Amino acid sequence: MTNDRTRFVLTAGTTRTAAIEGISAAGADPDAMVHTPAADAEILTYGTTVRAPEVPRSPTGCLTPAVVTRAVRDLVGFEATVVDGGLVEPTGAPTVTVGARPGDDVREQDPVSSAPGAFEAARQFGHALPEEEVFLAETIPGGTTTALGVLRALGERGAVSSSLPENPIETKRDVVEEGLAASSLAPGDASGEPKRAVRRMGDPVLAVVSGIALGAIESETAVTLAGGTQMVAVAALLRHAGVEQSLPLATTSYVAEDETAAVETAADELALDLTVADPGFGRSDHPAMATYAAGEAKEGVGMGGALALATRAGIPMADVRERVAAIADELAGD
Amino acid sequence: MTNDRTRFVLTAGTTRTAAIEGISAAGADPDAMVHTPAADAEILTYGTTVRAPEVPRSPTGCLTPAVVTRAVRDLVGFEATVVDGGLVEPTGAPTVTVGARPGDDVREQDPVSSAPGAFEAARQFGHALPEEEVFLAETIPGGTTTALGVLRALGERGAVSSSLPENPIETKRDVVEEGLAASSLAPGDASGEPKRAVRRMGDPVLAVVSGIALGAIESETAVTLAGGTQMVAVAALLRHAGVEQSLPLATTSYVAEDETAAVETAADELALDLTVADPGFGRSDHPAMATYAAGEAKEGVGMGGALALATRAGIPMADVRERVAAIADELAGD
Repeated sequence: MTNDRTRFVLTAGTTRTAAIEGISAAGADPDAMVHTPAADAEILTYGTTVRAPEVPRSPTGCLTPAVVTRAVRDLVGFEATVVDGGLVEPTGAPTVTVGARPGDDVREQDPVSSAPGAFEAARQFGHALPEEEVFLAETIPGGTTTALGVLRALGERGAVSSSLPENPIETKRDVVEEGLAASSLAPGDASGEPKRAVRRMGDPVLAVVSGIALGAIESETAVTLAGGTQMVAVAALLRHAGVEQSLPLATTSYVAEDETAAVETAADELALDLTVADPGFGRSDHPAMATYAAGEAKEGVGMGGALALATRAGIPMADVRERVAAIADELAGD
Repeated sequence: MTNDRTRFVLTAGTTRTAAIEGISAAGADPDAMVHTPAADAEILTYGTTVRAPEVPRSPTGCLTPAVVTRAVRDLVGFEATVVDGGLVEPTGAPTVTVGARPGDDVREQDPVSSAPGAFEAARQFGHALPEEEVFLAETIPGGTTTALGVLRALGERGAVSSSLPENPIETKRDVVEEGLAASSLAPGDASGEPKRAVRRMGDPVLAVVSGIALGAIESETAVTLAGGTQMVAVAALLRHAGVEQSLPLATTSYVAEDETAAVETAADELALDLTVADPGFGRSDHPAMATYAAGEAKEGVGMGGALALATRAGIPMADVRERVAAIADELAGD
C-alpha cells in the first residue's frame, strides 16, 4: 500500500518582484528565474526537468532545494501534488488550477488582483483533500520580499530570510516601503484582512498556500507548513483569518541559523510549533551540498518539511545526502 | 524507494460526440458525462472525487473503472500523471497541459482543430518523460465512436467496443458516415496522415495519447497501450505515423470477450502484443463488480493495464477485488 496518510502540496508561482536587482538567488539571472518554479515542480514530480530549459541554480551554482525534496520523496515515497500559484512558463509537471495569475511587482498598487479568487478556490481544494495530513510548500523567486510585505501589511514583525548568503534585507525593506506607499497602506492597516494584505503586498503563492491551509484546517486535516519565513507569512495570514490552533512549521537548520530570519521569535509570536531539520550537508564534500553549508538557498520547495518526513520514516540523513548526490550527478549529466 | 521505472499516464478529455443519444454509458446522462473525465482523474489521483460533483456511474449504476485502476494503484504504488486531453470542467486533479481543447461532435467538418498542436506538444512531453516505461490510458465519454471514426478515416477495420452491454454499433456507424461526409473523406482517405485522421474524425484524447506514445517511443521508453478499442485506434494512428516496432496492448477480459470489439483480429492486423486480464469480478457479489461481470463498462482509465501491473507485481486478483470493494464502499459513503 502507498502511504495515503500524507500529501505534499507544492504551490509554484511567480512575482515580478523577483526581477528587482539583488533580491533573489533562485535562478542564475532574472531571465532564468522565471523558469525556476516550473523546473522545481518537474524535479519534484519526475526527478528531472521535462519542459523547463534548465535545472535551477543560484548565480554561484547552488542547486535548487527541489533536489533535496525529491531525494527524500525517492526514499519515503510520499504523494506530491503541484498547484499552479501563478506560473508564467508552462510546466511539464501536472498542476492543479485555482485561478492564480503571475504576481506583479509589489511596488505597484494592486500587484496580486487574482489573490482573493485564488484564495477561495484554494480553500475549497484544501477542504476537499482526503488525506489525514498535508505538508504545504512553496517555490517562488522573490518570495521572501513579498512575505515581508505581507507581514508588514498585517502589522507583524518584519523579519525574513534570504536565498543569498548575505540577506539584502535593506533592499527588501525599501521595496516594501515603496509598495506600502503605492497601496496607500501604513504597517498594520491590513490587520485582520488577510486577503487584502496578500493582494496588495504579497504574491499569488502566499494567497494559494494560505487558502489551501485554511480549507484543510476547516476539514480537520493536519497541516504542516514546510518552509522558512515565507511559511511564517502564511502562518500570519492564517492567524489574521482567525485560525487559533497550533500550527507546525518545519524548516531547515539553515533558516533557523539565519539571524536575519528570526524564525524562533516569529514562532513564539505566532504560536508555531517549530521543527528544525539539519541534513548535515557540511559533512558532504559534494558541491551540490557544500553551497548549502555555506549559507546559500537555505530552504524552498518544502525542503525542511521533507527532511522532517525523512526523520519520521527513520531514514538517516546520510542516506538523504547520498540520494541528493545521486540526483545532482544525474542532473549534471543531462 | 518508489517504483520509478513505470509511470501511468491518463489522458482525460471530452468530445461533444458523447451527447448523441444512446452512444455512451460513461455517466448517468449527458450532463453528468461532461464531468466523468475530471472525476476519473480525481479518483486516480486521490482515491475520491475532490472537485467533481459526483462519482461517475452508468445509467444503471455501474461504477467507473477509475475505481479499479485506483485500487491497483493503492496495492502496487505506481506513479500516475494526468494529461488534459480537452477537459470542459475544471478538475481537482493536477494535469499537464498540451493545448488540447474539448472536441466537437465528429459529425462536424473540423471537430478537433486543436489536434495537430496538441499532438506535437504531447509528443515532446512523451519524449521528455524520464521513466523506462509508460502505460498510456484514456477517459473520454463517446470515445469508442471517435475511435471508429479514426479507424475508418485511416482505412482500418472499423470494429469498436462499448461501455454499454449492447453495443449501439449501428448508431456509431451512422454517426461516423455522417462525419466522413461532413469532412469530405472516404474511408482510407487519411491513410498515412494520422494528424488529419484524428483532427477530422477523432477526439482530442486520441491526438494526445498518440502524441505521447510517439514521443516516448522516439526516446526509447517502453510504451504499453492500456485500454480497449480506443487504444486500438491509437495503435493504428502510430502505425500510420510510421511506427513499426511491436506495440503492447493491455486490456480486460470484458473487451476481449466482446465480439463487436474484435480486439484479437485488430491485434493481428496491427501487430499488437495483446495481454488480457480477467479480474474475476463474477466471483464477487459486490454490486460495484457484478455490473462488470454483466458486460457494462468493460474498460476505461487503463483498467486492463492496471490489472496487468497487479499481475506483474504478484498481487492476487482477490486482493484487487477486496480493494475495489473497499473504495466503492468509501465512495458510496461520501
